[in-house]
Amino acid sequence: MKRTLIGELTPEEHSKISGWALKIRDTKYMVFIILKDRSGKIQVSIDKKNQEDLVKKLEGVLPSSVLSFTGKMVISEYVKDGGKEFLPEDLEILSSSDALPLDETANIDTRMDYRWIDLRSEKNNLMLKVQSKFVQGMREFLLNNDFTEIHTPKLIGAASESGSEVFEVKYFDRPAYLAQSPQFYKQMAIASGLERVFELAPSFRAENSNTNRHATEFTSLDLEFAYINDYQDVMDMEEDLLIAGLSKVKEAYGEEIKEVFGEEVIIPTKPFPRIKLQDLYQELNKRYGYQIPDTDIGDMNAETEKLTSKYAMEVYNSEFIFVTDFAKTKRAFYHMRKNDVPEGFDLIWKGTEITTGAQREHRYDILKSQAEEKGLGKDIEFYLEFFKYGCPPHGGFAIGIDRLTMLLLGIPSIKEEMFIFRGPSRLTP
Amino acid sequence: MKRTLIGELTPEEHSKISGWALKIRDTKYMVFIILKDRSGKIQVSIDKKNQEDLVKKLEGVLPSSVLSFTGKMVISEYVKDGGKEFLPEDLEILSSSDALPLDETANIDTRMDYRWIDLRSEKNNLMLKVQSKFVQGMREFLLNNDFTEIHTPKLIGAASESGSEVFEVKYFDRPAYLAQSPQFYKQMAIASGLERVFELAPSFRAENSNTNRHATEFTSLDLEFAYINDYQDVMDMEEDLLIAGLSKVKEAYGEEIKEVFGEEVIIPTKPFPRIKLQDLYQELNKRYGYQIPDTDIGDMNAETEKLTSKYAMEVYNSEFIFVTDFAKTKRAFYHMRKNDVPEGFDLIWKGTEITTGAQREHRYDILKSQAEEKGLGKDIEFYLEFFKYGCPPHGGFAIGIDRLTMLLLGIPSIKEEMFIFRGPSRLTP
Repeated sequence: MKRTLIGELTPEEHSKISGWALKIRDTKYMVFIILKDRSGKIQVSIDKKNQEDLVKKLEGVLPSSVLSFTGKMVISEYVKDGGKEFLPEDLEILSSSDALPLDETANIDTRMDYRWIDLRSEKNNLMLKVQSKFVQGMREFLLNNDFTEIHTPKLIGAASESGSEVFEVKYFDRPAYLAQSPQFYKQMAIASGLERVFELAPSFRAENSNTNRHATEFTSLDLEFAYINDYQDVMDMEEDLLIAGLSKVKEAYGEEIKEVFGEEVIIPTKPFPRIKLQDLYQELNKRYGYQIPDTDIGDMNAETEKLTSKYAMEVYNSEFIFVTDFAKTKRAFYHMRKNDVPEGFDLIWKGTEITTGAQREHRYDILKSQAEEKGLGKDIEFYLEFFKYGCPPHGGFAIGIDRLTMLLLGIPSIKEEMFIFRGPSRLTP
Repeated sequence: MKRTLIGELTPEEHSKISGWALKIRDTKYMVFIILKDRSGKIQVSIDKKNQEDLVKKLEGVLPSSVLSFTGKMVISEYVKDGGKEFLPEDLEILSSSDALPLDETANIDTRMDYRWIDLRSEKNNLMLKVQSKFVQGMREFLLNNDFTEIHTPKLIGAASESGSEVFEVKYFDRPAYLAQSPQFYKQMAIASGLERVFELAPSFRAENSNTNRHATEFTSLDLEFAYINDYQDVMDMEEDLLIAGLSKVKEAYGEEIKEVFGEEVIIPTKPFPRIKLQDLYQELNKRYGYQIPDTDIGDMNAETEKLTSKYAMEVYNSEFIFVTDFAKTKRAFYHMRKNDVPEGFDLIWKGTEITTGAQREHRYDILKSQAEEKGLGKDIEFYLEFFKYGCPPHGGFAIGIDRLTMLLLGIPSIKEEMFIFRGPSRLTP
């Protein structure tokens, strides 16, 4: 018999339902089981006196077992939550569970050890669906705007970008490295004539630090597109992208997110405020008495990001704000510069940086000298080659989708947001 | 001034176009440039006598430079291919190219060394767009059918599945490994209550072999779904998935594929033929006198796959055929078995295996004993845990999207199909 989703049951119709037994309550005359599938949950009610065979089958069955019932759904005035209950004629035990090794009071490490059980909660299931939907919305936007999805190599021959914080791989008789980002290769795609490309893929950082927003492996949405006039075009694109993603999420899960996470999904309006770093420093000083420490001048730090969001909300009533005109010493060598200032930006959302973007330097000689200025040599020679045989002006950015979902739902740590977190001391399950 | 795509120019309207100069032909009175962007190409015609300033700017400019022209498109009876030409008033050199280091006669290794130039060909650009579209079609189908997109870790704590052919990573003070597939983790998602999941991500195989269809890194579409009745449900799902993907491709690029690759995109009809391995052996013997070598009994080899497609086409007029009932010694320990026969299948397309799928064994005790039978111990203990606390029956499969595109377009080697190929002796660019 074909399974019917709990959310799609018709009263009095003979049906089969399957799902997890969230609770099994054995009372004097009745056994009540709360059964849950991806569409919802329902109370299954068994009459002990008249259904001895079912009671017998349930002996020793613990909650979190997976059960299948045939029978019918009825509307009953005795049942809470919509008044639906399921009256079974038969049941099948699809998978029986041991006693659960943790409960809701478990600490974060235990929850990580048993991540698959932890993920079963309503909150966590919703979180994973929200992320999938967010990505779907952004990807649809890109595909509708002539972007091509590409898949660039994660195994690379030379430690890219900076040399530090790269994982080394034993690649037959030589070392290889894990890509920290698809930066070089998405630019290669531009030099290949694709004009507009994106990739959603894992990035790897051998960063031996434990914070709430860093992981050694994370999923990044990277895009790059050609024939821009300047980096304002790149910010414009990111605005449209985020609006598309957030709209998709709000439409599908806006209400549920409010109920379960207490967060309002706000669709921003264009353009997002844009401010130069030097002006921002002045504003934060004037308004909040904040002075950037000398070591961070030309850049932002965690405190600056928090205050910047406060400022954006107070002055522009905006959750998002672009900050531009960082110091060249604080930015990657491949950012194009104008009057010695990088043509790039950070995007701040809810007190946290979610994107670094820029117009890229596509002129071979200038790019080469900017690389040398940062002390980068042989490792990036292969990359410089991409710009020798014609490459249009282009720009792009990256968004870590885990951080994005974390901020959207107000989840305190990236650990709790990722399907499975990877940190310096966490490689299992 | 905003750029107009070449394919969207209106006659006589003042416009700016930008793209690659495919050819620059200097004749007595005129300079002709074939300019190409993502929408098409056009001849740009410069009158040498009256446009000396433009001619001067073009001095030393080589083909494959990136140029921008302002002017207007006109319809001219002197021009081939639709009669359109562009009469420029001004030009800008966006990126000037060195003399190209290769031409169409270059061998495969040189083309791989300069992959970004190799990818600029009409054929290769189309190939990348077709793959993107194929994946888009399949992903839309999955999202429309309640699948959630997940992102599982590629850095894993133990050498998975078999132990051989795994890349080792220096992970701070200990070893980690690169995931050969998301198999264990997509099953974990099922145990997490997601019911239907998929992932598109890189997989890594430390296989030191050089064939036309293997790479050390490739992109795999993996899916897994719960509450199936048996593995026939899994094959049904794959039929729908491929039909969705191929339909999307045919709609967008069917004509172009025929022109450029000479291949017809055929949308298969359901159900695809399904045959048991033993019956297949008999058919191949009867029809083609083929006898499977003793070492391959219970499995298929490259020759069997080729003949199987021939058989499917001759008997069923089908490009696709499922083969079932492989020997348990030839299949992974996690395939469910019935009467000692794995409940799984291979899907053969155009002479090549594109998928292995199965119902998975979700019962802890049986799964454990099947793992022990294959000599798998400590490394997979974490995986067995996923089945101790309730896990619904489920099945799934994987498709390598590079192999898929390769077969669709009749490309002879995976090397030429991938954006960037990775093999034992190929880590650059």
